[in-house]
Amino acid sequence: MKPDNSDNFLSPVWWADDRLMLVDQRLLPAEELDRAYGRWEDVADAIRTLVVRGAPAIGVAAAFGVALAARQSRATTFDALFGDLEAAIKGLAATRPTAVNLFWALERMRRVALASVGVPLDRVTARLLTEAQAIRDEDIAANRALGTHGAALVPANARILTHCNAGALATAGFGTALGVIRAAHAQGRVDRVWVDETRPVMQGSRLTAWECAREGIPHTLIADVVAASLMARGQVDLIVTGADRIATNGDTANKIGTYALAVLGRHHRVPFYVAAPFSTIDPALASGEHIPIEERDPAEVRRVGAQQTAPATSPVFNPAFDVTPAALITAIITERGVFRPPYDFA
Amino acid sequence: MKPDNSDNFLSPVWWADDRLMLVDQRLLPAEELDRAYGRWEDVADAIRTLVVRGAPAIGVAAAFGVALAARQSRATTFDALFGDLEAAIKGLAATRPTAVNLFWALERMRRVALASVGVPLDRVTARLLTEAQAIRDEDIAANRALGTHGAALVPANARILTHCNAGALATAGFGTALGVIRAAHAQGRVDRVWVDETRPVMQGSRLTAWECAREGIPHTLIADVVAASLMARGQVDLIVTGADRIATNGDTANKIGTYALAVLGRHHRVPFYVAAPFSTIDPALASGEHIPIEERDPAEVRRVGAQQTAPATSPVFNPAFDVTPAALITAIITERGVFRPPYDFA
Repeated sequence: MKPDNSDNFLSPVWWADDRLMLVDQRLLPAEELDRAYGRWEDVADAIRTLVVRGAPAIGVAAAFGVALAARQSRATTFDALFGDLEAAIKGLAATRPTAVNLFWALERMRRVALASVGVPLDRVTARLLTEAQAIRDEDIAANRALGTHGAALVPANARILTHCNAGALATAGFGTALGVIRAAHAQGRVDRVWVDETRPVMQGSRLTAWECAREGIPHTLIADVVAASLMARGQVDLIVTGADRIATNGDTANKIGTYALAVLGRHHRVPFYVAAPFSTIDPALASGEHIPIEERDPAEVRRVGAQQTAPATSPVFNPAFDVTPAALITAIITERGVFRPPYDFA
Repeated sequence: MKPDNSDNFLSPVWWADDRLMLVDQRLLPAEELDRAYGRWEDVADAIRTLVVRGAPAIGVAAAFGVALAARQSRATTFDALFGDLEAAIKGLAATRPTAVNLFWALERMRRVALASVGVPLDRVTARLLTEAQAIRDEDIAANRALGTHGAALVPANARILTHCNAGALATAGFGTALGVIRAAHAQGRVDRVWVDETRPVMQGSRLTAWECAREGIPHTLIADVVAASLMARGQVDLIVTGADRIATNGDTANKIGTYALAVLGRHHRVPFYVAAPFSTIDPALASGEHIPIEERDPAEVRRVGAQQTAPATSPVFNPAFDVTPAALITAIITERGVFRPPYDFA
């Protein structure tokens, strides 16, 4: 994993030696392995198979995928190059449907290409790499900024529940929900982070607990089903999660299980915050009901690693995301500040 | 697994060839293995390590454990025999703290012993085995009766969510929550059972899905975190769970995660039912706040089988049960009928 601004900086996605580097997040916490990618098709596979995951990180990886497509192209005219880029953009966009940052980043790369008509092709290729780098750098900066905004909402000695991994590993670095927690921890305000394991892929226990352990943030791991009991016992001061797509009315798609936490938060009068870069807001969507929800392989629910946990033939419903209505969200934390209902992101 | 009244009857606990037989539920669904027990100490171990689980099944197993203790005893006086039985009762009671059926069954065995002063010791031993058999038979009969009462609450084409395993495997046979579902299915009223996997021990995916598959009850497996989404989509008509202990005001301890489902049921206006034999009601407890909640090994949350799913050093909070307040329970289904709030079990 690449050290960045500081020796301890954690990033799951970076450029090195003409290759896109990704931490293979499927192997954590048992193994830390960096993989190098030289072809956009392999980047698409990496996104599809969860080598890289987390809405902002997917967007950054896809942007580098387009940069790789330009380098792979043997086109000698702009139109031919643009055709190759469009094919890559289409292939990368088809990997996962819910997180909007993917489409946002691809569209940004497409515009840079479109704005480069008449530019020598090697310069177009260089521009695309520069843009991907910019998307990465801006994501880190956005997370640091939203972390500072969010930390101001955290009371002293806070016991914070988070879901899935919205940490450094889900972004270019620093994290969104875990960025808020990082910033609050740096200010000495965090008594404890409740990390739920987040079945079926276990991004909470595998990734968030690992990030907390790595940085000495006090944390306790729980099964997802324990969160309600903690709230009933008065042991959760706030909930903060990331987001994969936010409609303009504030409805938020995020990892399956988020919606239940928002309902439980409302029932127990525990504030429920969403933390995400502004690029997670989809200006084309007025409400959450039309956000496409990815359904993943039943095998994710029937087994854990090599361990069979269910009859091999039992039918499975395995949606990867759910939608939390804006009415259940206390505030949405972005790099541009903290938004409260009624939401107006314009 | 023992065929009983019918060829297909499933029971996880029975007496055969002077031994207590238990289905090793830790191995399901991958392997079906029956184990034989001749010593009460081994029965206590089997309860502690979840070879047998489920409040009613634990009570039945413990009763047979006392019967075994009588057979193990070399006492030649009633007082010496009773001392041996008391030691076994104490040891069996120390295995798990939450399910009251364990203590209820042990107390029933103790009373049979106490009522046998002056009876020849071999007759005392025979009486204890007869009593354990009676506890088993009565549990099956109670489950059949509560299943019939509960089925009357199930609408046509019902989509029913259940949690953990409150099936045949959790009882002497037929099941409580799953007994209601079995009875409703026999009447053609079940469109689908939503089986949540029930982390960390996965009694839902390992046991309930297996029971449903075995009997052709249409079912779909979900991760625990999916239940809220199903309710929001209007795809759950009712929730039914078992119980490990019910206070006289109706507060109910059951598998961790039950409380969250009750809150979610209330939020989505989905009826939430508890199904349990009358022996689950603890007359000594006025409310749920004093029910002891077992905390289990952190390893249950850090790994699944051989698969590491979290950093080895991350702290874990692993309560096995939670308490659902009576106010969130639509009705409690027992063999004596359906009780509704305010609860009066006298």
